[in-house]
Amino acid sequence: MAPTLELLEEPAGNLPVKAVSAIRNGNSADDLKLESPEKHQRVMNVFRAFIADICQQYGEGHAGSPMGMAAIGIALWKYVMKYSPNNCNYFNRDRFVLSNGHACLWQYLFLHLVGVKSMTLEQLKSYHSTKLDSVCPGHPEIENEGIEVTTGPLGQGLANAVGLAMATKNLAATYNKPGHEVVNNMTWCMVGDACIQEGVGLEALSLAGHWRLNNLCVIFDNNSVTCDGTADVANTEDINTKMRATGYNVVDVYNGDSDVAAIVNALVAARSSDKPTFINIRTTIGFGSALAGTADVHGAALGVDEVANVKRSFGLNPDEHFHIPQDVYDFFSDIPGRGEAHEASWQAALVKYHEEDPVLAAEFELRVMGKLPEDWSKCIPRKEEQPTASTASRKSAGVITNALGQNINSFLVGTADLTPSVNVAYKNKVDFQSPELRTACGLNGNYSGRYIHYGIREHAMCAISNGLAAFNKGTFIPMTSTYFVFHLYAAAAVRMAALQGLQQIHIATHDSIGVGENGPTHQPVAVAALYRAMPNVLYIRPCDAEEVAGAYIAAIQATETPTIISLSRQGLTQYPQYSSREGTLKGAYVFVEDNDFDVTLIGVGSEMGFAMQTRELLFKEHGIKSRVVSFPCIRLFEQQSREYKHSVLKPRAGKPTVVIEAYPSYGWERYADASVSMNSFGKSLPSKEIYEHYGFSPESIAPKVKDLVEEVRRDGIEILRGDFRDFNGGLRIGLEH
Amino acid sequence: MAPTLELLEEPAGNLPVKAVSAIRNGNSADDLKLESPEKHQRVMNVFRAFIADICQQYGEGHAGSPMGMAAIGIALWKYVMKYSPNNCNYFNRDRFVLSNGHACLWQYLFLHLVGVKSMTLEQLKSYHSTKLDSVCPGHPEIENEGIEVTTGPLGQGLANAVGLAMATKNLAATYNKPGHEVVNNMTWCMVGDACIQEGVGLEALSLAGHWRLNNLCVIFDNNSVTCDGTADVANTEDINTKMRATGYNVVDVYNGDSDVAAIVNALVAARSSDKPTFINIRTTIGFGSALAGTADVHGAALGVDEVANVKRSFGLNPDEHFHIPQDVYDFFSDIPGRGEAHEASWQAALVKYHEEDPVLAAEFELRVMGKLPEDWSKCIPRKEEQPTASTASRKSAGVITNALGQNINSFLVGTADLTPSVNVAYKNKVDFQSPELRTACGLNGNYSGRYIHYGIREHAMCAISNGLAAFNKGTFIPMTSTYFVFHLYAAAAVRMAALQGLQQIHIATHDSIGVGENGPTHQPVAVAALYRAMPNVLYIRPCDAEEVAGAYIAAIQATETPTIISLSRQGLTQYPQYSSREGTLKGAYVFVEDNDFDVTLIGVGSEMGFAMQTRELLFKEHGIKSRVVSFPCIRLFEQQSREYKHSVLKPRAGKPTVVIEAYPSYGWERYADASVSMNSFGKSLPSKEIYEHYGFSPESIAPKVKDLVEEVRRDGIEILRGDFRDFNGGLRIGLEH
Repeated sequence: MAPTLELLEEPAGNLPVKAVSAIRNGNSADDLKLESPEKHQRVMNVFRAFIADICQQYGEGHAGSPMGMAAIGIALWKYVMKYSPNNCNYFNRDRFVLSNGHACLWQYLFLHLVGVKSMTLEQLKSYHSTKLDSVCPGHPEIENEGIEVTTGPLGQGLANAVGLAMATKNLAATYNKPGHEVVNNMTWCMVGDACIQEGVGLEALSLAGHWRLNNLCVIFDNNSVTCDGTADVANTEDINTKMRATGYNVVDVYNGDSDVAAIVNALVAARSSDKPTFINIRTTIGFGSALAGTADVHGAALGVDEVANVKRSFGLNPDEHFHIPQDVYDFFSDIPGRGEAHEASWQAALVKYHEEDPVLAAEFELRVMGKLPEDWSKCIPRKEEQPTASTASRKSAGVITNALGQNINSFLVGTADLTPSVNVAYKNKVDFQSPELRTACGLNGNYSGRYIHYGIREHAMCAISNGLAAFNKGTFIPMTSTYFVFHLYAAAAVRMAALQGLQQIHIATHDSIGVGENGPTHQPVAVAALYRAMPNVLYIRPCDAEEVAGAYIAAIQATETPTIISLSRQGLTQYPQYSSREGTLKGAYVFVEDNDFDVTLIGVGSEMGFAMQTRELLFKEHGIKSRVVSFPCIRLFEQQSREYKHSVLKPRAGKPTVVIEAYPSYGWERYADASVSMNSFGKSLPSKEIYEHYGFSPESIAPKVKDLVEEVRRDGIEILRGDFRDFNGGLRIGLEH
Repeated sequence: MAPTLELLEEPAGNLPVKAVSAIRNGNSADDLKLESPEKHQRVMNVFRAFIADICQQYGEGHAGSPMGMAAIGIALWKYVMKYSPNNCNYFNRDRFVLSNGHACLWQYLFLHLVGVKSMTLEQLKSYHSTKLDSVCPGHPEIENEGIEVTTGPLGQGLANAVGLAMATKNLAATYNKPGHEVVNNMTWCMVGDACIQEGVGLEALSLAGHWRLNNLCVIFDNNSVTCDGTADVANTEDINTKMRATGYNVVDVYNGDSDVAAIVNALVAARSSDKPTFINIRTTIGFGSALAGTADVHGAALGVDEVANVKRSFGLNPDEHFHIPQDVYDFFSDIPGRGEAHEASWQAALVKYHEEDPVLAAEFELRVMGKLPEDWSKCIPRKEEQPTASTASRKSAGVITNALGQNINSFLVGTADLTPSVNVAYKNKVDFQSPELRTACGLNGNYSGRYIHYGIREHAMCAISNGLAAFNKGTFIPMTSTYFVFHLYAAAAVRMAALQGLQQIHIATHDSIGVGENGPTHQPVAVAALYRAMPNVLYIRPCDAEEVAGAYIAAIQATETPTIISLSRQGLTQYPQYSSREGTLKGAYVFVEDNDFDVTLIGVGSEMGFAMQTRELLFKEHGIKSRVVSFPCIRLFEQQSREYKHSVLKPRAGKPTVVIEAYPSYGWERYADASVSMNSFGKSLPSKEIYEHYGFSPESIAPKVKDLVEEVRRDGIEILRGDFRDFNGGLRIGLEH
């Protein structure tokens, strides 16, 4: 098969026409004009000594992998990658992900050598220092030039890289036209042993193989050492065979410590592969040191004497520290110019593209700017279009997801194999698939498809979504979908999205115990607390279709924040008189006011019905007057003014507040004095019966609220201070018997 | 290689000597006296019709897989598995795990047919009904007879099965003596497509292959259909090759719908494999229905007409419902007797074993009873043995972990490749490894080893630990270790432990932002909230070595609860005058009392030092008197009496309470009026500097507390009602810029 990706124009610099042709045609790198092995050795010596120096200054940091990966870095930054040091964010650049993020010094030093201006010598030396917001933090961070994604938690970067490669495929299939390729970059992903042991990495590898992402190259730094010693201590599988079975072209490099040419050869071949490529490169951790090949150099400095020995063995002056001779800078001096040429040729291609198809070009340019078409709001039903009959919120959400998915190319809608349950499949959807699979297994899809079957891989779904979102912020808004309980599988990836400010929308259906018969394994008691406490996450539990509309508006407006929209399986009473998207955007609002109230009831998501029914019963049976507050999102509420908060909660009125939610009360103490909540995992019972079993019914709630109201009337509100009342009992230890 | 596992005695029943010999020698099953194919067909027809009936009664449930797996069930329950329906908990039984837990009806019906008494017809019919605590919940639950582990969240069961197989290996290597095999059971694990797509399943498969757990047989119900349609939609890898590369013997069965003999053959071969076995069985989901082979029968009833059609096509009366003819019962009637014989032979072996080695036998019997030797408390340092100089709590914990690991066979100590950092490796530890790897890769270990290198696989580590703990409750107390932030990777497994009441101890080091230079990816802001809100989990953050001792005592005493002990990387001031293990066991206690106090400061874990220093500064600079409360565990505190709680918190004193912890304040509102807490992810800075940056220093805290104290003096404590003060600001959306 012909390579999908080609260089647009011959780059400037020292790559001759023959080399460009070699890359274009996927031939070997023999034609590339490589510098001499001696020159490479010289650069690697200086590189390795510098790494040793940096870690030595504070006696810590990760020296081993950066030293081991020196030759790989030369192959990538000097010869193979397409990028522009003067504009690291140039749209059509190759993406590079360091999934073994602890090796970040390696990347930092190459960024310095190739001329990325923010990566000064001083910055390099600030690694592990007390410098605030160093561009050389302990793991790579997306905020800094030349870093595509924040990595560190292992396996995440690999999954991100799959997302980055998908992004290219999808944009290319959507916008490229014959003779006009405006997106055709490669994604290079460096991994260590850990990334291919971690489940999230394995899930992502399977998907990339399935999708035949031939623009992805996974580069395995196979140094055979992990923190615990030899990698064999926990892994003895035949990785090459496994990767071939997973759909990869596998290439071996046996001397990854110094054979730059062999690495270049393998990398260049990856550009013309018909499958994703896995390059298995044998390296020596801590190469050059007496501790080379041992776990002792993984996460530690070498020691003063050993640093000196390393330099001596390399023929360098042991008394020179942090020294990069001019000839090493010169070695990389052509890169900025080549990068500018890459960028210029892309800009030129864009101009021609605009002439060819101004409409498509305008849309493409909007996406390059990371902007959503303004008419996204047309996908949100107007208040008067909302249903009035009982409707599951997963269905109300489906209406919006489907409209967004169908109409706006920025939305990639995925599911972890729950299409029949999560209501995200839209009419005439096209699956994201390799067109080759159409013949191989009769699948109907291609790379322009924006409906993504992730399989039963929730963690990779969310981690890949991070890559999609990070391709160029705003170009894609990935949507994922699964049952809310399974967002626990994906928690580490959602956290990485929050940490990086990556916008995405997670459709989390089957929330609360109302999911019913599937039982406690599927009832997400306690999952909400994680996301409510997590910085920069919006966790929104709408109570009806109108609040669902508000949730989507909040999610789309939060351009630097992942949002989880938490939805019911079961039908929910609609409250067109009371519910409001504007209120939802404020996080909480007065649902039903009563100036002469005895108690405030907080209703949340699918438990709003119990609040409203309890209000009715309390008045009918006991003459107790309740006001009701809807509280779909704690985080949004916390952004409001103190005055607004007080107007909603009336904390000074001397009246109690009771929250009703089928999760543990943990965290609601800020707003309420008592709760009807869950103190255990659930049970396998139909929705109605399980709610009743756990005391979620007006008949069960009303008497408890009545007692509380009477107690407060008698003794004053102060009695509740320090005595939060879990009406259903608090969380315990041990199983209930 | 000779099979490790052999039947102890010839079982009674219809298995002739030849069959036993076949099993023992790992020959084919040709010698087994199988019933005729026609008889099998008859049983399967009745079985499948019954499944269709059950799902039809409430119009829901999972019918497809149970119908497809009928032949597999006959092979397992009628011919191959060693178990005793009259005593499902007989110690040396084969373990069976239904990792595709949604197919539970299949298991329930076989348990009924083989005579498990609690599994009545009436119970079977209660599947998806309103019956409380049905033994037929929507997914299998460990509480019920014949269920080894609760399954449902996909991939978990497979990892549990690896743990169960490890448990056997470890017990066998520890206690079996030549001629005296007291533990030699097999573990059979049924998986669907999902379990081998999920990362946790893939991690566990890699480990079982590495460990050469030849007593594990993974049975793949390869029906090629998932919720989204053909499994090809998200997975097209060559699974057999992949499994071989991962260290498995792979056996194909091509007609899994009816070829009972072929399945028996494959299963029997697994008993004598030198590696774990992966049986790839092609089945048809919903076999017998017109919808067979489609996703429509995955999670749905067939419809009244189609149920009738199924019965007609099987030659059954469509008007008979839930009907199991006597001849089908008769088919399984030998099982209880055979089971009793298995058990009797084990009991007899135990008697002989006791005669041979009474000391070892006594220890073994204690473990069979699930009891820990009482001298475990000797592993906990006495108060007077505790350090007084600054000590990282990971080090204080290491002292105890090491003693437990070294001295008590019940403890299996594992790490996700962080041996150098988590301080759990004990002197003279023996690794759990296949002895064959000693020659293959020079590893030093065997199956009696109790130090487990899980590799970089946190999720599998915890899910496998669930299997270890579930082998026979109390026989093992698994310990895991990694950085606390990576317990987020494992969250779904920890949740399953809590749900099942499985005791285990998770050593979670590098908690809080004090982890330092590794940066925000490694600083577990927000992870604690998950575990504090999760039912039946103890999350304990000790402030010094004495509290660490208390944490271990709590963890060991909580026999139905997983415990996470959350520990610092950095050195912590020791408070021998104030800290107390008894106080720790109560969750919170008065650290420093002052009856004339102005403010209560709550110190938590590694942030206790800031509370104590602030107390000093407040008095010195402002004459403000503070009492200090140590609060290592919210859950334990919640178990205390109201009187005790009030004595610690003094909520009625009219004085403010401030909590100091480097996590978000979410959840502390129950006990405090204000917080010094984290409102964002962290940064890459050394421990001291990052604390200072986020306002964790007495100089930063004291003025804020002073202002609060003055405000309360002026306006009364009521002003704080509904106005929790996050001194560092609340959680926001968007990134900080």
